[in-house]
Amino acid sequence: MPNVTQTLATLKSKLLEIQHLKDAAALLSWDQETYMPAGGGQTRAEQLATLQTLAHAKFVSPEIEDLLFQHIDPTTGLANAETNGLDDASKALVREIWRDFSRAKKLPSDFVNRLERECSLAQQVWAEARRRDDFTSFLPNLQSVVALKFEEIDYLGYDDSPYDALLDAYEPGATVAQLQPLFATLRHGLRDLLQHVREAASPPDDRLLFQTYDKQQQLAFGKLVLQGMGYDFNRGRLDLSAHPFTTSFHPTDVRVTTRVFEKDLPSCLFSCIHEGGHGLYDQGLPQEHYGTPLGEPLSLGIHESQSRLWENNVGRSKAFWTHFFPLLRQYFPAQLGTISLDAFHAALNRVKPSLIRVEADEVTYNLHIMVRFDIELALIEKQVQVKDLPGLWREKMQEYLGIIPERDADGVLQDVHWSLGALGYFPTYTLGNLYASMFFQQACQDIPELETDIQQGHLLSLKTWLNHNIHQCGRQYSSADLLHRITGRALSVEPFLSYLRTKIGDIYGFTRTR
Amino acid sequence: MPNVTQTLATLKSKLLEIQHLKDAAALLSWDQETYMPAGGGQTRAEQLATLQTLAHAKFVSPEIEDLLFQHIDPTTGLANAETNGLDDASKALVREIWRDFSRAKKLPSDFVNRLERECSLAQQVWAEARRRDDFTSFLPNLQSVVALKFEEIDYLGYDDSPYDALLDAYEPGATVAQLQPLFATLRHGLRDLLQHVREAASPPDDRLLFQTYDKQQQLAFGKLVLQGMGYDFNRGRLDLSAHPFTTSFHPTDVRVTTRVFEKDLPSCLFSCIHEGGHGLYDQGLPQEHYGTPLGEPLSLGIHESQSRLWENNVGRSKAFWTHFFPLLRQYFPAQLGTISLDAFHAALNRVKPSLIRVEADEVTYNLHIMVRFDIELALIEKQVQVKDLPGLWREKMQEYLGIIPERDADGVLQDVHWSLGALGYFPTYTLGNLYASMFFQQACQDIPELETDIQQGHLLSLKTWLNHNIHQCGRQYSSADLLHRITGRALSVEPFLSYLRTKIGDIYGFTRTR
Repeated sequence: MPNVTQTLATLKSKLLEIQHLKDAAALLSWDQETYMPAGGGQTRAEQLATLQTLAHAKFVSPEIEDLLFQHIDPTTGLANAETNGLDDASKALVREIWRDFSRAKKLPSDFVNRLERECSLAQQVWAEARRRDDFTSFLPNLQSVVALKFEEIDYLGYDDSPYDALLDAYEPGATVAQLQPLFATLRHGLRDLLQHVREAASPPDDRLLFQTYDKQQQLAFGKLVLQGMGYDFNRGRLDLSAHPFTTSFHPTDVRVTTRVFEKDLPSCLFSCIHEGGHGLYDQGLPQEHYGTPLGEPLSLGIHESQSRLWENNVGRSKAFWTHFFPLLRQYFPAQLGTISLDAFHAALNRVKPSLIRVEADEVTYNLHIMVRFDIELALIEKQVQVKDLPGLWREKMQEYLGIIPERDADGVLQDVHWSLGALGYFPTYTLGNLYASMFFQQACQDIPELETDIQQGHLLSLKTWLNHNIHQCGRQYSSADLLHRITGRALSVEPFLSYLRTKIGDIYGFTRTR
Repeated sequence: MPNVTQTLATLKSKLLEIQHLKDAAALLSWDQETYMPAGGGQTRAEQLATLQTLAHAKFVSPEIEDLLFQHIDPTTGLANAETNGLDDASKALVREIWRDFSRAKKLPSDFVNRLERECSLAQQVWAEARRRDDFTSFLPNLQSVVALKFEEIDYLGYDDSPYDALLDAYEPGATVAQLQPLFATLRHGLRDLLQHVREAASPPDDRLLFQTYDKQQQLAFGKLVLQGMGYDFNRGRLDLSAHPFTTSFHPTDVRVTTRVFEKDLPSCLFSCIHEGGHGLYDQGLPQEHYGTPLGEPLSLGIHESQSRLWENNVGRSKAFWTHFFPLLRQYFPAQLGTISLDAFHAALNRVKPSLIRVEADEVTYNLHIMVRFDIELALIEKQVQVKDLPGLWREKMQEYLGIIPERDADGVLQDVHWSLGALGYFPTYTLGNLYASMFFQQACQDIPELETDIQQGHLLSLKTWLNHNIHQCGRQYSSADLLHRITGRALSVEPFLSYLRTKIGDIYGFTRTR
């Protein structure tokens, strides 16, 4: 029998080859969203399909399985005695490769192909349906996607709720049983906060954010902030795309995108900071584990915690703008010359229920997520049917946010996720917000001078803290373990609610907690 | 035994998968030269190696061999009876796949890997050696590369000169026996022409080309010319890179690059036109044969004929500037407002022996190639050793161009080709020039109004002629067959010399042939 260290090295070299294929696919996707000429679209889809199919086939191959069975007891799925004798990182490595492999192996290639084809089609139909505000034309495609997700759930299996099987793909270990009480407490707190906001005497005026702002100047300022955050342009780039995103081909090449509108200052600004947070995570992953799970981000929720921490806990704070607002004023003297820091900070934090998730403020954002979570759960637990979704959407929006979209384009059709088969994805946004506040609270404790640092534009102490505590860990720990290692606590909504109550209360004048 | 049409379809689908891998590799390379952050270089090289190794392994696989042996008699390498019953295109397809396969199969994977590794290293050492003007530091690497090329020649085999084995990779069918007399005639004609130029009373003044020209305006004009040529920006892009190049991921996505210097108008202008010529070829390849040899460019010589035809026969002609010079003057009124068309045209065609190939005029350019061809041939036929190259370079430069580089950086170290193992490549540049003049002469005959068209800026009649006669053929015919089909003649230097004598003679005032 070969030595386990040796088989592990062989396994890693095979994973590295697969990683290179995935990196190539990621570059093809990045190019598609940034520089690809329009005519290249059809072939690009085929090139991507080839790379992805090849990467999948290489991963679920008998060769990889044989190598894994040198480390794993096939009957229990747990590490064998020899593997248990390895160091913690190697044990975590085996555990995580096995997790990916056993999940991928449960899905027949034929099913993967059908799902990809159907989603590729559904995404195009969805885009057109949204444009024409016509849910009916999208209904058959969405029904097909949902039927495939039921099939997927059957392949994957689950203990409690069928929704857990989907959730697990995006946030390993998360369950409906855990999320429901958490979300209920959060919803209660947010609606209470929203009620206070509604009753406040004088809401901040945010019209100053929607004056005319030169696009090139906006982009230059976005770059300045990214540099201040420690995003390394020697290992990254900022480009334009219709929807901002971050992509990584290796920690030495992590790219972010933004979009820029002349009459919307927050859009470019906060997408730069948000994607910068994602980018710092990917640039901070351990290079020595590249190609293996230990070099990968832990979960979508943890990834989102990095973007939201920078976007909200930092980027919408008074401390941050104490340093950056004078600089921003130099970029836009005509627009901001007479505006005070307080007025600017208040405008950035204006709370107002609106129809579109991606434009929502921090208070209402998670209510948008809960609308989606409730609907997905009801659908996957077969309490409602796909055709009922537009009505259910309006009902839930009325219940949670007190407003109802007049058009499905601003309601049930607004997000791309379902057309892509990404059911179970939305809760990770809220988890990200919750993690972010817990992490940031802990960072403030661990770095006593953090607020002063931020006020002076010194953001690197925070970046280094995140590098060390989160980024460098890859997938060595579970989300719950990582959170506990860092904060000593289990996931809770209180740090997030408390952070928000203080900030919004200060701005709207209904608390005196500070 | 399976039906040959069916096995051919299976073969094509396997080639398509390999093509997608090559396309992905091409995008990774393009990105490396255009947008990749500096930090990403090392991993990019590994990603590229994985894709190329995988593409090679998939191509020389037993599966492809088995499929080919349904069509090819393994003992003779010729199509079998059933394949001979297919249409001409299918027969050509089998012939060309077999050509690629049998060549690739001769090279052991281990050798391919060693060659790639050595060249990757040699290229870095060369760049540094050129920077420091230090041939000695590059010598051991060049010796290793040359030793590997001798090994390659042994694997490939040859009939007459060992150099033929190398030449065949770039220009199928070309041989030393064919090139030597051709090049001798050409050299004689060029040196005669150069003598006339040297004796001419008043050479044109080209200083006007090296005034200060705004870079953005230069790029905008480059784009204008590309559009005029029929280069389709819906299926292409123009970007910046250190060395201009063209790359293709499919006829619907063909990208060109240029470089731009403020004090050098010809550089950006002619690299746009040159790469545009390459780009039109790639955009014009038959999409229905994508992934197979029938959808590929015929040879490097034919590819170069397309770039040089547009750059020189068109782009340095009086007819072209009759339309474009008034436009260029609108872009640069301060610099060109008082310059006449004749003076501008003469400046563009100034002949002057210089040290650097890529900056050479049309008369001396091919003399640079012959310096390299003679050296490569002597090296491969073991008449000289690698250490003798710097001296031999100076000797040949003195003999052919009458000037001697003081530094090896401007001599034997100037080109990247040898460090990449691309011995046998240089002659295709001259072949391109010769083909270009023969094609252009024929186009002028086939399209009687062509000169008028060009004078009026209507370049699409020429583009369509090239599409139909050359681009659409892919690799269906050999270079010699294609040339004969189009011009009714075999390769000859006379059309090129005659074209050059007329133009240069007119400008320098030593002929009255027009």
